[in-house]
Parts: sequence; C-alpha cells; structure tokens
Amino acid sequence: MIIAPDSLMARVGEAMNVLNGLAERHPDAISFAAGRPAAEVVAWPTLDDALDASRIARAGTAAWQYGPTPGLLGPLISALWAADEGGSIDPEAVIATTGAQEALWLVLTALFEPGDVLLVPDPTYVGATGAAAVARVPVAPVWPLTPERVAATVEALAAEGRRARALYLVPDFANPEGDTLDEATRRALVALARRTGLLLLEDSPYRAFAFEAPPPPSLLALDGQGHVVQLGSFAKTLSPGLRLGWLAWPGAPAEAFAALVRAKSFVTLNTSALTQALAEGFVRRSGAPGLRALTAPARSLYRSRRDALVDALERRLGRVDARWSTPGGGFFLSLRLPFDFDTDDMHACAARHGVLVCPMHLFSPTGRGRDTLRLAFANVEPDQIAEGVDRLARALEARC
Amino acid sequence: MIIAPDSLMARVGEAMNVLNGLAERHPDAISFAAGRPAAEVVAWPTLDDALDASRIARAGTAAWQYGPTPGLLGPLISALWAADEGGSIDPEAVIATTGAQEALWLVLTALFEPGDVLLVPDPTYVGATGAAAVARVPVAPVWPLTPERVAATVEALAAEGRRARALYLVPDFANPEGDTLDEATRRALVALARRTGLLLLEDSPYRAFAFEAPPPPSLLALDGQGHVVQLGSFAKTLSPGLRLGWLAWPGAPAEAFAALVRAKSFVTLNTSALTQALAEGFVRRSGAPGLRALTAPARSLYRSRRDALVDALERRLGRVDARWSTPGGGFFLSLRLPFDFDTDDMHACAARHGVLVCPMHLFSPTGRGRDTLRLAFANVEPDQIAEGVDRLARALEARC
Repeated sequence: MIIAPDSLMARVGEAMNVLNGLAERHPDAISFAAGRPAAEVVAWPTLDDALDASRIARAGTAAWQYGPTPGLLGPLISALWAADEGGSIDPEAVIATTGAQEALWLVLTALFEPGDVLLVPDPTYVGATGAAAVARVPVAPVWPLTPERVAATVEALAAEGRRARALYLVPDFANPEGDTLDEATRRALVALARRTGLLLLEDSPYRAFAFEAPPPPSLLALDGQGHVVQLGSFAKTLSPGLRLGWLAWPGAPAEAFAALVRAKSFVTLNTSALTQALAEGFVRRSGAPGLRALTAPARSLYRSRRDALVDALERRLGRVDARWSTPGGGFFLSLRLPFDFDTDDMHACAARHGVLVCPMHLFSPTGRGRDTLRLAFANVEPDQIAEGVDRLARALEARC
Repeated sequence: MIIAPDSLMARVGEAMNVLNGLAERHPDAISFAAGRPAAEVVAWPTLDDALDASRIARAGTAAWQYGPTPGLLGPLISALWAADEGGSIDPEAVIATTGAQEALWLVLTALFEPGDVLLVPDPTYVGATGAAAVARVPVAPVWPLTPERVAATVEALAAEGRRARALYLVPDFANPEGDTLDEATRRALVALARRTGLLLLEDSPYRAFAFEAPPPPSLLALDGQGHVVQLGSFAKTLSPGLRLGWLAWPGAPAEAFAALVRAKSFVTLNTSALTQALAEGFVRRSGAPGLRALTAPARSLYRSRRDALVDALERRLGRVDARWSTPGGGFFLSLRLPFDFDTDDMHACAARHGVLVCPMHLFSPTGRGRDTLRLAFANVEPDQIAEGVDRLARALEARC
C-alpha cells in the first residue's frame, strides 16, 4: 500500500498538533510523552573548555567561519566508530548535518527521483514520515518488518513500475516501540539491499544506551559497501542543544554522494563549525574513546528509570490486563491494553489524572496500534515515574 | 525566459566547482574571491560568558534541549529591529533558522506549488539559484532589476499560465555586484507585490555595514503586511560559525506561515537552541541596542578596506581601461574590464600571478557579466589588498 504525500501530511500534521498541544496544555502533568534525554546528562558545565580542547577550533579561526560543505566531523566519527563498533568508516564518507533529521532530508531531496517510494516500519518515527510528506515522497508502510515483507513490498512496487528507493528504520531500541531487530533479520535485510538496490537508512540514536547485552551489529557494520546510509545523531549522546548529526555512507557511488553534498550546500550551506568544534572538543576532553564509554553515566541513569517503570507497571497494573515489553535499552516502552486508547482518552488522562502518554497510532501512517501506548521514561525522575504510573493505572481502571 | 532546474543545476554546479576548487588549488594566493567576514570581528573571546548572559539559557536547560520548532529568537529579532530600523516586528512572526540559506529553502519547499517560478536578479547570489535548482523550482532572471521589468516578467509568466511566486533579492550592498536599490525602486516593488501577490524575499546580510549614508528603508519596513519575507542572517554581524539566521514574515497568511513551520520541523527539526542562546547572550552582553551599534568596529574595518581597494585600483589600473563602482557598504566591488575574463583567465591569474578573483558570470544564471569581476574585500588585510591589486594589474596588463 502506498500512501501519497498529501494524505500522509494530513495524518502527520494531526499527530504533531496533538503531541505539541498536549504538553502545552498540561505543563504540570507528569509526562511519559516526550522522547527527550535527561536534562542532567546533556547540559555541559563549560563551553570554553570544550572549545579549547577541539582540534577543529585550533585550526585558526575554523570554528568561527564558514566551513566546508561536508563539514569537519569525519575524523571524529571514524574514531568513535572504531571504539564503539570495532570497524572503520572512511572519514571522507561523512557529511556533518544539522541533526539526523537533516541527514534524512538530504537523502529524500538528493537521492529520490519523482515517484520513488520510501519504505517505513509501521509505526515509525514521525520525523521520517513527516519529512517524506513535505518532500512529496510517497511512503509504503511495511508490517511486520520482516525481510520477506520488505522483499514482497519491493516486488509489488516494481510490478507497478515504481522503485522502492530506500527503507528507513531504527534497528536499535526503536522510537516508538522500543524494540530491536535481531541479527538474522539485519543480515537478511543487508542481503536484500544488495540484491535489489534498496538503500537501508539506518537511524540509530539510542544504540549507545544498551542496558544489558549489546545490540546485534549495526546494518552499516554488516555492509559498508554502499547499501547502508547511516543517519547519525549526537542529540542523545552529547546534547540536543547542539542540533548536530551526520550522514555516513561508506561505499557510496561517487555521483550520489556528490548529489548529497550539493543538496547540503543549498539546504543549510554547511553545518555550524562551532557546534562541530564543541562536539569534538567535548569528546576529546572527556577522555572517553567512544560513545559507549562517554555515556556510561547516562546509560546507568536510564537503566534505573527503565527498572523503575517496569517495577511500577508490575505493581500497579495488576487489575488491568495490560502487557508490556521490557526494552533492553533506549528511551521507550510499549504498553499494550485490552482496549483501544485514542486521543480523547489521552486528553482525558491528561486533564483528569495529570499524566501524559502517547497512543501508538499517532506514529503509524496507517493508524495501527490503537490499543498500545508509548511510554518515554528517559527524562522522568524515578519518584515521578512511580506517581505517573499510579495516575495512569487509575485512568486505565476507570476505563475498564 | 524560464530556466529549468536541470540546466540551472548544471550551471550552478559548475560555478560551485570552479569557486571551491580555486581556493583549494591556490591556498597561498591573495584572495578577493571569498565573501567572508574578517576573522578578527567574528571570533568571540568567550562562549561561557555569552551563555551566562542569555535569557534563553537561563530558562532552565533550554539551551541544551530540543526547542520549539519556530525557535526562540522572536524577542531578540524584534528588539534589534526596533533599534536598527525604528519599526516593530511581531516576535511571533519569526522562525529561527540554520542560516538565511535554510530560510530560503523553507520558502521554496513550503510556499511553492509545482510549476511556480522564482524571479531573481541577474547576476545573483548563487545560493539562491542553487537552492531553486535542487528544490526543482524554475527560475526567471530579471535584468535590469527595475519594477517595470519585474512586472513584465510576472505578466509574461501569467500569460503562459504560470505563477511568479516570489522575487528573491539582496537590496543592500548586494552579493555579487555590491549595489543598492534606491528607495523609489523599493516602493515600486512593494506596490507591485501588493498588486500581484508576488512575494518579495528580502535577503540583507550586509545592511548593517553601510559606510556612509544609511541605505533606504528595507522592503520589510515599507510593507509589513505579508508581502515581504525577510531572510535574516547573523553570519556577518555575529559569526558564520553559529550558522544562525531567521525568517520574519509579519502579516503572513496563517496557513502559509504554518506550512513554513511544518517544513522546518521536518528539514532540521528545530534550530540549535545553544546557538540561539549564544547569539542572544552575546548581543545582550555587548550592551549594544542593535546590530548597527554592535558592528561599528567591523564597519570601520570594512570601510578602511574598501578605501584601500579603491585607492589601489586608482593607483594601479591606470593602464587598463577598467571601471569600478565604489560600494557604499558591504563586502563587494564590481570591476568592469574592456575585455572578457573567463574561468581560464581566472585560473591563469591565480597560477601565474597569485591572486584570486571571481568572474561575475559565475553568479549569473544566463552567463551575464563576462567582462566583469567581483572583488570581495572584507576579509583581506590592507597590505594584501595593495599587493593583490598590483598582481591583478599585472595580470590584466598581460591580457591587454
């Protein structure tokens, strides 16, 4: 099934309005709605020290001037990748971007011909479907996200004379469901990409936050031959305030990579050299070899919040026949209810019980997940988690 | 004449390759080619002090988190405008952007229907024509840029069933020619916009740098009723390293403004809250009421460089029948030669004489200006200006 840009825009626009309006109307409620990192782990004590430690900044006045279009992050990304994943990324294959959102935007702008289709999981990150809608790229949701389903969708589109240009996905502790793709699925997707020419757009902002076992190898590590584009983000590992990310595409066809760089130069000219220098200097100053080491304190904080949430759900949701995942990392937990929970219920829950939750169907281009909630726990204090789940339990019991 | 995106892209791509390759191949040459501000006026002594002075940063952890899509710059832009122009801008009409480039990109993405045409001066800023090409917006160059010509182009397009959606222009000390629109032309363009629905996209990064008389009122000051969109930039007044700008559209139709905000959320999510806080704190800490006051030292530096350039041209170009403008502000001077000067001459000039200049036709979507050079003087030291003009004179004399 293909969803055309206009109808996708209507759906995404409604979801954005609902989500934005919710927090504004209930500023004092306990919020499981916002997928934000914890304030205490992303605010830095000093900027000047980070800048002092930066090699980028030390190159004359580089941090204060216009910079090269692909940016200056190649060596940093390559070094972090070697420490975290044990592999290598060619620094020349990296473009610094204004967050992972711009990385996706550049792909949609530069690599999609008119009529090309973007495959997405269902539900998925609303920033991906929203970008497709604004860029007028039609979307085909794939559910469940199995290699067989993806292959069938690619074939069905080809039979209609359309090209499935790329599959967007969050393999690790995904927003919104919190789940992680197993290794066999990853390998099969890479094989499929190699066979069909489908690009895999790997968005993995939560990968550093694995609470127990590390997640399976990244798609990029399994390929590195041009079939995987990494959409990188420092929003959760360093700070959302930097609005800094990257696009890494080792093995890219030269012409396609050049088209991305050209698009970058006309969308935002170049990424802030200052924020690039700050990120590089902050990492260098921390002494951490990679993002796993750098984020150890944050990971431990988020794990304790995940535990607090699961404990509270076990304690309080006994009277409701609900089921939930125990995510192995990241920011999100899925809570499945024995009844539908729509935006009216969400508003009632906020107004009467003072707790904000997101119905999963807001993240679905097809309206899936009407009986499921997304609970974001990373930016909620443990005592607020307990109180929030109390309130949610009362709201759900009232619905039973 | 309409230029289709593909042929425009070919032309712009060639110009970008030429310009980028030039500086890379001749790093030690004296460069009149780069439209950069002087390093000494855009590098800040401290970041922490700027952040301390920021109201944005003081609002909890706002500088370190995701921010609202329209950003946090409204009050600052409004205050600066009141000090510099004596008028008022509704803070709610402001969207913080990743530089003026993103402001233009959002307009092209959100306000243009397929087939709508962008009018541009000829020559013009290559970032404008490049953005149109990547966004697949056809362009109609208008030369000379008179209200009569603009009106005739709007009518000619309408007769073909096409809509002239907007006119992009740099009214003050324009890149690339350095010239300034007179007040009568500005008033006539605003009247034309009101009559026809043509939007005026006012990009004015050099306005604060008027060396003698202040420039005529800005287009936005002459309208403010929704016919002018201001594409704002802090690159020259604060620092290019911030990559921070804004879009201000007082009097915008609500639906069109909402479409811009929606596009913003899917192109780059939101503008870095940290760079917004730094800009606001830096201005506050300076004690300057507006950008004119803040940039007084830079303006004086640039005026002395303009004077050094004009002096050197007068002294050294006697044997060449060249003519030049004396720009009343900004970064650029146009030098007209009695013969054509193409990219081969540019390369020869760089390789044999060690001086970099830009043929004006690189900035023209139609190849106009083959006998004209753009000389950027803002980031060249006075002794380098004298030496650079010596070298240029020798190169030109060799051509005579």
